[in-house]
Amino acid sequence: MVDALPVSPLAPKGGFPELPAVPGVRFATAAAGVKYKGRADVMLAALDPGTVVAGTFTRSKTRAAPVLDCQAKLGHRSEAGAAILVNSGNANAFTGIKGVEAVQAVTQAVSSALDVPQTRVFTASTGVIGEPLPHDRVTQVIGELSAALSPSALADAARAIMTTDTFPKGAGRQVTIDGKTVTISGIAKGSGMIAPDMATMLVYIFTDAKIGFEPLQSMVTDQCNGTFNCITVDSDTSTSDTLLVAATGASGIDVTGNAEFADALFSVMEDLAKQVVRDGEGATKFVTVEVTGAASDTDAKQVALAIANSPLVKTAIAGEDANWGRVVMAVGKSGAEADRDRLSIQFGDVQVARDGQVATGYDEAAATEHMKGDEVTLGVDLGLGGGQATVYTCDLTAQYIAINADYRS
Amino acid sequence: MVDALPVSPLAPKGGFPELPAVPGVRFATAAAGVKYKGRADVMLAALDPGTVVAGTFTRSKTRAAPVLDCQAKLGHRSEAGAAILVNSGNANAFTGIKGVEAVQAVTQAVSSALDVPQTRVFTASTGVIGEPLPHDRVTQVIGELSAALSPSALADAARAIMTTDTFPKGAGRQVTIDGKTVTISGIAKGSGMIAPDMATMLVYIFTDAKIGFEPLQSMVTDQCNGTFNCITVDSDTSTSDTLLVAATGASGIDVTGNAEFADALFSVMEDLAKQVVRDGEGATKFVTVEVTGAASDTDAKQVALAIANSPLVKTAIAGEDANWGRVVMAVGKSGAEADRDRLSIQFGDVQVARDGQVATGYDEAAATEHMKGDEVTLGVDLGLGGGQATVYTCDLTAQYIAINADYRS
Repeated sequence: MVDALPVSPLAPKGGFPELPAVPGVRFATAAAGVKYKGRADVMLAALDPGTVVAGTFTRSKTRAAPVLDCQAKLGHRSEAGAAILVNSGNANAFTGIKGVEAVQAVTQAVSSALDVPQTRVFTASTGVIGEPLPHDRVTQVIGELSAALSPSALADAARAIMTTDTFPKGAGRQVTIDGKTVTISGIAKGSGMIAPDMATMLVYIFTDAKIGFEPLQSMVTDQCNGTFNCITVDSDTSTSDTLLVAATGASGIDVTGNAEFADALFSVMEDLAKQVVRDGEGATKFVTVEVTGAASDTDAKQVALAIANSPLVKTAIAGEDANWGRVVMAVGKSGAEADRDRLSIQFGDVQVARDGQVATGYDEAAATEHMKGDEVTLGVDLGLGGGQATVYTCDLTAQYIAINADYRS
Repeated sequence: MVDALPVSPLAPKGGFPELPAVPGVRFATAAAGVKYKGRADVMLAALDPGTVVAGTFTRSKTRAAPVLDCQAKLGHRSEAGAAILVNSGNANAFTGIKGVEAVQAVTQAVSSALDVPQTRVFTASTGVIGEPLPHDRVTQVIGELSAALSPSALADAARAIMTTDTFPKGAGRQVTIDGKTVTISGIAKGSGMIAPDMATMLVYIFTDAKIGFEPLQSMVTDQCNGTFNCITVDSDTSTSDTLLVAATGASGIDVTGNAEFADALFSVMEDLAKQVVRDGEGATKFVTVEVTGAASDTDAKQVALAIANSPLVKTAIAGEDANWGRVVMAVGKSGAEADRDRLSIQFGDVQVARDGQVATGYDEAAATEHMKGDEVTLGVDLGLGGGQATVYTCDLTAQYIAINADYRS
């Protein structure tokens, strides 16, 4: 069971942050018993009329029915209210026509209860895949949810969407524009999976900023590339990954083209993305892979991901072993342009290798000391050009195997 | 230490096979103490004049000095004798100019001892990377090796090139062509690595067939795609992978364009490739991934590799969990053309999913029973076209983590 997992040692020390309420958004949670017992497993967010919703989704070819439904609805122009409903415990993925029917039933029920168009109801499901979603259990609690909506229930919402997560994830920022405060508050879930569940990463970010769909979507797509698309726990891509950003406009502040708002949104997304890595299944080390000197940014990211996804690099980190040979190996297999004899490597501040061989005066004891911390940084300079990328990941431990091979929920 | 690893439960039951000697080839091994103590760690194969050598190598951008040297020498036309020298314990990789000097020293010493051109001496090194190869230890035993050469020492050679391998790997076939016997005998090493070593896969195949360089190289390249390029233990590519096929011509039988010989060579390569998987680090299950119905063979292989390399699929197999949802996930992330609603999956003979959802009458108990065996077959039909591919892999267990995170040699 999920409850058997101890909280990740990398969880933020202060617990769930104090997040300011976002004018125009209210939340509620309920225990529908989709699969988990004795905990809330459905969350509803009600969005005031005028809210603009943008988002990004998994590019999996086997993506789930709710994802396809959200994608079809995104960008639909309407001044009406909107809603987001998420259940945990069942992913409604690989469920054929039954999956589509379940989305229909749930979005219809929310549409009626909140008096918003069905085309403005976004859903997501996370949990077991291949089993039909018992959508009647979800629709049964929608009345209860509608009656309980509150601007301050964001932390409860973060808990309701957890599956194998060991802590709820939230992040918020406030920026002052033209003397007025604009608020951004977001939640995320993601960690990995418990057999036979499938991992999903879900992210919901809310703001009272005023902005049109196209500029918001453009900002979200761009920032996703620098945040959520820069993390990896185990190289396995979910069928259900969903990120939605809802801008209610309640602040009256137009943030189109506003750099300060863009920075704040980026900061919230990066914070949540890093929290997902910190809750990586079995993780004991938070790892930053910084690649510089690549022929292009694309090449740099390819190298960074090859390092971050290498089971041999990840197990070496778990073993606190300054095994730079495996970093060399990962660079070599990445497919990106590389020249062995220009390659330099740092572990933390320790220069390990320079120009294709071990660095003069390399201090292995210092490198090993860096590996013993719970924040490890691998720096790789390819010595070719100006391309760079940073990717965040975690180590690969026996606990990952235990979670994914031994546990049955 | 290597000796602490128990023999893989997937090792061939009969032990190392009885391999026929190949006319024109002699072997010797010696304990040079490169790194391991108390065991042979260098093997020399002396090839009679007229031997044709073809091969394939890692495509890593950080490949080792011996690999670059072999690649430069391959296809060099000569009727002179030739030699292959391999040491274990040190990979001579990422060693800069010192690595090139070590290859020079070793190939020069072999050239002198056996009176063959230096351009006909092929070497490989496997083991720790980033440390200069103590090549004087290797050159010191070359006299001893030259004096001990014997046609029957192939099994000893297979043992001398082991690093983290838990059993020596050999395979042979004999075919009768025009009433005469042509022999093929080969050895391989490969399993994974022990911190801070780097895995290398080395394969040496010998035959007394008569064939020119171009047709032999063409045959080897082609067959490598169907054998060694169809296996994966952990998705991490070595800096030193080397496959050499040496045809001495001693049988006098010209096999150019001979299908029977080609089949036999393929069979030896496939046998050795599967043995490498059977010795995958921590492996408890031998896994065959069969993909059919893809838009192309390339797509089929991309899907098969995505499944075979997925840590979530591999941990599910370790846990004997018929977790077909993870197979769906891997298909979805592969990047190959796929249609969720045409996807069908079999575990062994059990139909698990058909046309994008769980199969009618799916018998989970039967699927689980199949997972309990030590040979697991995952069949995926994409329902799109005639493309197909088969890939071999193993499961991902806590022992893999232990070998790569906890062991220090």
